[in-house]
Amino acid sequence: MIGVFDSGLGGLTVVKEIKKIMPEIKILYFGDTAHLPYGEKSEEIIKKYTLAACNFLKRRKVKVIVIACHSASSVALDYVKSKISLPIIGVIEAGVKAAIKKTKSKRVGVIGTRITIKSGAYERVFKNYDKEIEIIARPTPLLVPLVEEGWINHYITKEVLKLYLQPLKEEKIDTLLLGCTHYPLLKKTIKEIFKNKIAVVDSAEELARSIVGFLDYKKIEKEKGELIIYLTDIPPEFEKIARNFLGFSPEKVMRVAPQE
Amino acid sequence: MIGVFDSGLGGLTVVKEIKKIMPEIKILYFGDTAHLPYGEKSEEIIKKYTLAACNFLKRRKVKVIVIACHSASSVALDYVKSKISLPIIGVIEAGVKAAIKKTKSKRVGVIGTRITIKSGAYERVFKNYDKEIEIIARPTPLLVPLVEEGWINHYITKEVLKLYLQPLKEEKIDTLLLGCTHYPLLKKTIKEIFKNKIAVVDSAEELARSIVGFLDYKKIEKEKGELIIYLTDIPPEFEKIARNFLGFSPEKVMRVAPQE
Repeated sequence: MIGVFDSGLGGLTVVKEIKKIMPEIKILYFGDTAHLPYGEKSEEIIKKYTLAACNFLKRRKVKVIVIACHSASSVALDYVKSKISLPIIGVIEAGVKAAIKKTKSKRVGVIGTRITIKSGAYERVFKNYDKEIEIIARPTPLLVPLVEEGWINHYITKEVLKLYLQPLKEEKIDTLLLGCTHYPLLKKTIKEIFKNKIAVVDSAEELARSIVGFLDYKKIEKEKGELIIYLTDIPPEFEKIARNFLGFSPEKVMRVAPQE
Repeated sequence: MIGVFDSGLGGLTVVKEIKKIMPEIKILYFGDTAHLPYGEKSEEIIKKYTLAACNFLKRRKVKVIVIACHSASSVALDYVKSKISLPIIGVIEAGVKAAIKKTKSKRVGVIGTRITIKSGAYERVFKNYDKEIEIIARPTPLLVPLVEEGWINHYITKEVLKLYLQPLKEEKIDTLLLGCTHYPLLKKTIKEIFKNKIAVVDSAEELARSIVGFLDYKKIEKEKGELIIYLTDIPPEFEKIARNFLGFSPEKVMRVAPQE
């Protein structure tokens, strides 16, 4: 049984990718919709919320916890690992490993929320694997609201992406890492802006693969069961947003009190 | 002593307007930055957070509480009034009264967050004063992120505003009510889009005026003192955003635990 934690609904993209590889595995999803978005909040409060969320999942006997939220993975992963005796997988590492495999020029772009980029977490993890890689990181805070407005193929979104990505183009990156759960929905447009000349790393895909690898390596039983979604708030546009991320309408959705 | 409550920093536009009229009055500001934004959350959780915030201000002995947040005023004002024995002034009423004075054609537009518009609060208050007014309301959820990105005079913001306001133009409104604390920063662009042919009602200004009127009417003492800002989280871009709203850098800023 896998526990997936995200600040909101974006982590459902990771659930979607896990289900592509292991369609029947039981997943408990915890979305902290009462406190979202994390991307513009402080490190201290993100640590607090992330620990509370992981404890919630631990009490429900998950075997491994996946932190799908890039902001939480960036600033709270080590903290939560030090507090909870369960395997915890963050989203940063999987994306970094994939980007390193793909880049030839060793010039890699990273886009994410303000807190993810400000934390420097991506730079730190990249340097652990390859000291020569040059990281060009840029906060792109309007992309989440644009996706949540449903403007996925909208010309405004394309314009905003062009503006945000222009400096990365000038830096001649050959690989771009999507450092936020919402960004895979913009992958097509992003590739077009780079005229399909760069590799785009979708962290959700990479994370799903690394979870399966981890379960196999640790010989953790892949218990079957349905997807259960716990949310600390049910936002007005929940159905539409969830379907966008997940590809189908979730059945078992429960509201629980915000964990603090 | 006035208590001002907002989900974040946008309510500082109201503080700015109050200080224009009463520069020396003591104001306690509570910004629920750990839980923001309210605009895309459910009614139930907004009620809970708003009550907790008002109780926080009440414990600090304010004489009157101003709810500067449109989302909270839309869905939680009556609830909080029923629970707390203090005068509580919401932002909706002041804006509505001003719009009624300004409209001639009785066709009034309202823009706000998803929850503000969905709540129907503006329609209800308008109908209390004038049953003939026709309200054309539209959610404009990207405007807050655009302002917080600092893109106040940016061409993208102008494009987004054009798209959002086009249906209101077609409805031939003669007055537009800005139903969110962040929107006064976009007033100039909004007026340009309507070629300066409509009246734009800035709720912060109207609210400040109605607070002064209320204090005079109730003969509440205007205790002097400085502005104290309590925040449940200090976001990374706090200084810049606060200055944008307030017109100056606040001195006394304190972090307090999220109230639940």
